[in-house]
Amino acid sequence: MNFDRALFQDPTFCGCGTSYQESRVVLFGAPYDGSASFRPGARFGPSDMRRDSWGLETYSPVLDRDLEDARVCDLGDLELPAGNTPLALERVEAVSDSILTAGKLPVMIGGDHSMTLGAVRAALKVHPDLHLIQLDAHTDLRQDYLGDELSHASVMRRCFDLLGKDRIHAFGIRSGLKEEFEFARSHGDLHAFTLEEVTSLRETVGGLPVYVTIDLDLLDPSILPGTGTPEPGGVTLAELLKALNFLSELKLVGTDLMELAPRLDPSGASTAVACKLLREWLLLLAPDPQ
Amino acid sequence: MNFDRALFQDPTFCGCGTSYQESRVVLFGAPYDGSASFRPGARFGPSDMRRDSWGLETYSPVLDRDLEDARVCDLGDLELPAGNTPLALERVEAVSDSILTAGKLPVMIGGDHSMTLGAVRAALKVHPDLHLIQLDAHTDLRQDYLGDELSHASVMRRCFDLLGKDRIHAFGIRSGLKEEFEFARSHGDLHAFTLEEVTSLRETVGGLPVYVTIDLDLLDPSILPGTGTPEPGGVTLAELLKALNFLSELKLVGTDLMELAPRLDPSGASTAVACKLLREWLLLLAPDPQ
Amino acid sequence: MNFDRALFQDPTFCGCGTSYQESRVVLFGAPYDGSASFRPGARFGPSDMRRDSWGLETYSPVLDRDLEDARVCDLGDLELPAGNTPLALERVEAVSDSILTAGKLPVMIGGDHSMTLGAVRAALKVHPDLHLIQLDAHTDLRQDYLGDELSHASVMRRCFDLLGKDRIHAFGIRSGLKEEFEFARSHGDLHAFTLEEVTSLRETVGGLPVYVTIDLDLLDPSILPGTGTPEPGGVTLAELLKALNFLSELKLVGTDLMELAPRLDPSGASTAVACKLLREWLLLLAPDPQ
Amino acid sequence: MNFDRALFQDPTFCGCGTSYQESRVVLFGAPYDGSASFRPGARFGPSDMRRDSWGLETYSPVLDRDLEDARVCDLGDLELPAGNTPLALERVEAVSDSILTAGKLPVMIGGDHSMTLGAVRAALKVHPDLHLIQLDAHTDLRQDYLGDELSHASVMRRCFDLLGKDRIHAFGIRSGLKEEFEFARSHGDLHAFTLEEVTSLRETVGGLPVYVTIDLDLLDPSILPGTGTPEPGGVTLAELLKALNFLSELKLVGTDLMELAPRLDPSGASTAVACKLLREWLLLLAPDPQ
Amino acid sequence: MNFDRALFQDPTFCGCGTSYQESRVVLFGAPYDGSASFRPGARFGPSDMRRDSWGLETYSPVLDRDLEDARVCDLGDLELPAGNTPLALERVEAVSDSILTAGKLPVMIGGDHSMTLGAVRAALKVHPDLHLIQLDAHTDLRQDYLGDELSHASVMRRCFDLLGKDRIHAFGIRSGLKEEFEFARSHGDLHAFTLEEVTSLRETVGGLPVYVTIDLDLLDPSILPGTGTPEPGGVTLAELLKALNFLSELKLVGTDLMELAPRLDPSGASTAVACKLLREWLLLLAPDPQ
Amino acid sequence: MNFDRALFQDPTFCGCGTSYQESRVVLFGAPYDGSASFRPGARFGPSDMRRDSWGLETYSPVLDRDLEDARVCDLGDLELPAGNTPLALERVEAVSDSILTAGKLPVMIGGDHSMTLGAVRAALKVHPDLHLIQLDAHTDLRQDYLGDELSHASVMRRCFDLLGKDRIHAFGIRSGLKEEFEFARSHGDLHAFTLEEVTSLRETVGGLPVYVTIDLDLLDPSILPGTGTPEPGGVTLAELLKALNFLSELKLVGTDLMELAPRLDPSGASTAVACKLLREWLLLLAPDPQ
Repeated sequence: MNFDRALFQDPTFCGCGTSYQESRVVLFGAPYDGSASFRPGARFGPSDMRRDSWGLETYSPVLDRDLEDARVCDLGDLELPAGNTPLALERVEAVSDSILTAGKLPVMIGGDHSMTLGAVRAALKVHPDLHLIQLDAHTDLRQDYLGDELSHASVMRRCFDLLGKDRIHAFGIRSGLKEEFEFARSHGDLHAFTLEEVTSLRETVGGLPVYVTIDLDLLDPSILPGTGTPEPGGVTLAELLKALNFLSELKLVGTDLMELAPRLDPSGASTAVACKLLREWLLLLAPDPQ
Repeated sequence: MNFDRALFQDPTFCGCGTSYQESRVVLFGAPYDGSASFRPGARFGPSDMRRDSWGLETYSPVLDRDLEDARVCDLGDLELPAGNTPLALERVEAVSDSILTAGKLPVMIGGDHSMTLGAVRAALKVHPDLHLIQLDAHTDLRQDYLGDELSHASVMRRCFDLLGKDRIHAFGIRSGLKEEFEFARSHGDLHAFTLEEVTSLRETVGGLPVYVTIDLDLLDPSILPGTGTPEPGGVTLAELLKALNFLSELKLVGTDLMELAPRLDPSGASTAVACKLLREWLLLLAPDPQ
Repeated sequence: MNFDRALFQDPTFCGCGTSYQESRVVLFGAPYDGSASFRPGARFGPSDMRRDSWGLETYSPVLDRDLEDARVCDLGDLELPAGNTPLALERVEAVSDSILTAGKLPVMIGGDHSMTLGAVRAALKVHPDLHLIQLDAHTDLRQDYLGDELSHASVMRRCFDLLGKDRIHAFGIRSGLKEEFEFARSHGDLHAFTLEEVTSLRETVGGLPVYVTIDLDLLDPSILPGTGTPEPGGVTLAELLKALNFLSELKLVGTDLMELAPRLDPSGASTAVACKLLREWLLLLAPDPQ
Repeated sequence: MNFDRALFQDPTFCGCGTSYQESRVVLFGAPYDGSASFRPGARFGPSDMRRDSWGLETYSPVLDRDLEDARVCDLGDLELPAGNTPLALERVEAVSDSILTAGKLPVMIGGDHSMTLGAVRAALKVHPDLHLIQLDAHTDLRQDYLGDELSHASVMRRCFDLLGKDRIHAFGIRSGLKEEFEFARSHGDLHAFTLEEVTSLRETVGGLPVYVTIDLDLLDPSILPGTGTPEPGGVTLAELLKALNFLSELKLVGTDLMELAPRLDPSGASTAVACKLLREWLLLLAPDPQ
Repeated sequence: MNFDRALFQDPTFCGCGTSYQESRVVLFGAPYDGSASFRPGARFGPSDMRRDSWGLETYSPVLDRDLEDARVCDLGDLELPAGNTPLALERVEAVSDSILTAGKLPVMIGGDHSMTLGAVRAALKVHPDLHLIQLDAHTDLRQDYLGDELSHASVMRRCFDLLGKDRIHAFGIRSGLKEEFEFARSHGDLHAFTLEEVTSLRETVGGLPVYVTIDLDLLDPSILPGTGTPEPGGVTLAELLKALNFLSELKLVGTDLMELAPRLDPSGASTAVACKLLREWLLLLAPDPQ
Repeated sequence: MNFDRALFQDPTFCGCGTSYQESRVVLFGAPYDGSASFRPGARFGPSDMRRDSWGLETYSPVLDRDLEDARVCDLGDLELPAGNTPLALERVEAVSDSILTAGKLPVMIGGDHSMTLGAVRAALKVHPDLHLIQLDAHTDLRQDYLGDELSHASVMRRCFDLLGKDRIHAFGIRSGLKEEFEFARSHGDLHAFTLEEVTSLRETVGGLPVYVTIDLDLLDPSILPGTGTPEPGGVTLAELLKALNFLSELKLVGTDLMELAPRLDPSGASTAVACKLLREWLLLLAPDPQ
């Protein structure tokens, strides 16, 4: 090449330009929103986060660490068939599987919450004693949504079908059917409304492998209005960051950040929140460079 | 009919499908914004709330009650002549009157705040000892606004003309002319800036009939930007819900939720806040089913 | 009821308030956009058209007829499971079937184009010699889209599977894979780029029963930008109205108006175009009142 | 003043900085939209046109004339009471009256079409033989709109009450009730759908004083979507400019440009069209400088 | 003039209609956003604030003072060449210089933060012992941004070049390169993340002349999303108002309010926050009227 | 790599995935809008076109050719310093130079029109007898804009400084100062208002090397509202495509597509038009594959 590559912008998320081989943490987007019951738009989450990470520094003054040092690889976005959840889940499972098999940590950017099932299926194959930690506004425990068993409103129920009793730990939940709340209390580990009780995980999951799924509608809509089903009365960004700080000490084998629907918030503030959250989360997850 | 009605969506607000006859609480929309001094758009409030209530569950985990059990009837939206406040007020008064006469509780969704005058006129006819409780950012006590005595900026002054001294109890007020604040202090019961003092109503109104008017611009614009005249420095959703909890113990004979201008907030978060607020308010107001 | 129903707004589309029993033409919405490959949002088409028909007169000065006289019934919108095309198609087929069986003409408002398959399946059951007339920008003839055989990009191929050779007549097509154009030419009746040749249908379909599917992206994006996959270089509104005038003389047994994604065009002009088009189309289809 | 005024932006419309005394043509805004039946927002028309005229040159290459030479004074916007049409009309009439009395030509920027009544009342006082030329999509001839006789949907009927039979000449009309079309044909001079027949005015109004009211929804929504009641099927900008060219030869005593609702078209294209149209219209109306 | 000027709207910011001669505080806009690294739009800040101040009362119930009494003159907006920072800075410096020389207090409304350099250059000429107080989310201390030394990301570094060590006092900073934080700590007076330590200024600047620059992205994006580079995790409006209250007791010789990009927040809430903030800040700065 | 790259989306423009080495035509983005005089936003043009090309087929049914066969390489977007036009121009010139030196055809996607100067400087170095063909709404011939000589409003004047008399051929121009039109007529080859006279180039430039610069505001705003300075009264897409068809027969050595400001048109129609235009233009420019 007779031109200077350095004159061009880097298209990866905020300094995550490490090659796949050298990386320890691997980012990929799952731009699917076919199962969104109220408002679609989460399909634009990964690409808009990548683009708007341009406005974010790679350095975190709170953690005093830099994402450019964190050996994260950004693979880009999966090509997923709109409106066909089973096929989309297969692709998410396949790439998660590859990353896990290579001994790396998969980090998925959604996309609607239904995609989490694919990543959990892959993680469960490698870690049969997997526990699932759900930070979310909604129970997502319906048996089906208007007959659809793969809806984002049913994703935790499908995970329950795989994991069984007492292995889903839910925090921040503030919306659902009465039956879903009852199911969550009898078959899972429900901590409604706040994140205060995440520290209980030290006892309940201890050193077991965990997958952490973050549905961004957990945050109050004043902080993140750009999501398909905004649910007023949520947690603050500081509360979520504090919880992630705690969670980073567990044995994490996979994680995701779902349900940013960026164009529903034309101000871009929602995307900025999601980007900053992902930077801090990646810095907490990535090992110190040598 | 040879087709299955159950295949179709219910167009009423969030599970408020009880018939008029069987209902105890009756919802109606007053889609008028002719008197909005700064930015119109409140005319779209009722229909957009009804539509977006699709994204809200009928069950409240905080109150552990379900709106489907609450016997609320949603009549739909009045047909009101844009730009003719007197005619619009007549229609609001007429329907409020019918609901009150039938022994039911009218709940009006605005529309701009000027419409409250019609509902208060109807309530006063039935309850001559009515007190008015105003949760609002603005005093709304101008004698007139550029000559117009029926402006939303004058609605409380017109209510004062009907009710007389010491029968308007205002909370959360943080904006107005100097003269309006002075008038409110000398002729009414003003509690500026916060809702903390709503408990004083136990003494001031005791068991008397009250009408509660809620101007949504009471909330901080970070929570509800979609309103004609956003006024920074407002109360939180939790503070408002707490106040409503207290108010539900008074002898309520009518209420309204005004000034959502949904399209000013394209994220839909403002509408989601208004919907959730209305659900909780209805659950607090509706009698337990037998 | 002790109140005056006439004070309230009519929630049906533009004067289509005839009861099901008395109607000859029956409107229903199919708010599904799960299969939209590029941008979702067609799910909001039917409800936004109904709402914005408020800004449209029921009288057509061009046709000198009034929709209030046309005996059209508007059933409202189906409740469809986002992201599960097979289930959604079942519901569309069921309601189409009921309407056809009752001897009425079904008119579906989309929703994405995939839903047409459900309506065509119902029509074919009643009319085995059915021909399909497609007004569209895109071929929609892919065998599958990323593996999904029920994508809106495959809907005409699925119809072909049912109807067989030479029974799909396509007009206005200006986008597709090279293979799709070749398939359309060899297996169907393709008239690319314009609507000028619709008159050829007089010969090709004569008095046979026809289903007319209108994908609104047929129109140039300057006229209707609010659609999931805008394709520059389309036909004008006048050209489309002229074609519909001709088509109304055929033996129509069903029709639809698909792919309005109203919120992609915040000006509302796209919805206004779709509403006016539907009014004229209904007036052309509805028999003269006696 | 010790600072340089020339460093600052001129806040008037596109080079219309002539003083009132020296001016021949006087511009003012009537930011009222209280009577808009469908969507408000015309109140922002005048201020947004003034602001966006920043993107328009003062020179017209078609007319080879410059607005800076045309001696136009821009007075700014009237302060009008939202929701009180009678009071707003008084103010419009008062300022129109002053301008006419000073021997100048008033040019009003709307605001909704109801405001035209105020300007016509003033013009009629000075010119009892006034004729009214209406370029519009809608008849605006309802006796009242939901009981309101000053609605923008009734403005031409109110003008008829003042002017009497055969003195309203309407062009481009393509929407209205059947009764309105009949009234227009029997009591006025209706030329529906196009502007082609404006040349007939040479005979019908000859040298009589005329007021020209332009409702911008006359234009096709593809050209000007930013208006309260977009009506598909309108005229092009070239057709309107051609008609204005002809009209400028009549004995004009007042004119207006109504119903731009700029924020309904976030692209700003509608405002750009309105600004360019106003520039050309002013250049056609303003006398050559000496 | 034969017409009544009082019928027209006042185009200045919220009651700031005092003449230049009689004023003590002088407002002007610097509508420049050429140096915005992420998202432009701050050029629309001053004009949109002026326009939307229409929705704000001139009276502050918290301070019990009225802006109409405060003798503030609003000069309007400078005419600045987009994309040429050096020329724009010259114009800002020139007008600031005139205001300072006239013994008045200049208050600049941005525009992007780069413009602060022009105002600081003028202030430093008159007050060689000037200290600079920066309330901001970002360090703005880069030596250059992609080679540009006048970027808004370098503005504090350029001020440092003029002022020297220990004369920039920064509060609320939560974003920057690691090198910038190190520079800020070693060469300036950095108080990261919050405004709590502003009271330390009593000691560090005492009675010395200070210029206060407020970058509105200091506020949390939930409160003010309409800014070019939103940075989650910011201060609340109450915290900022409290800090301004303290700062108003220092010896202020100039100030600015930068980086509102109003159209990025279509709800207008950001502009409302900026307007209210400016009203309170002006009331704190303006001397009591006699 | 242990994962399947084919599962991921291709981030290049519409099938332009050829490597630099194998390519004949090279695409790059110049995301700079610092010099936009009216409304910024062109910086988002290249990235939004790349993203939305997802909704466009690679095959052109009009040309019966496919972009996947056309050996085009998409390098991505340059990293350019906002607000520093000279530095940005250097980078554009450098990369254009590399591409030309490698014997390939550079195609630049803007960005504002000022960037064309960089590309023309590079082309002139290689082709001293270069002619410039400008398709544009605006003259862009100001000596300077508020003192800035590198403004997008001066770009053609700066090109004139390099090229000299009679070597700029402008088509479609419909806006400018009177002086600019006079300059264009006396020093260049001006064809105002339409593109009809492009065929005259056969004589005026014959076989000489030409650079074609396309300012998208040439198109009528009904077709492409998403541009910084929309100028009503423009050409249609069909007229532009016809002109490009003719131009492709000249000896092209460089070209660009400037001034798409995609977010000004939230419907995405403007971006769709720009994408389709670029696809057709690339297919016309690229040699037939062997």
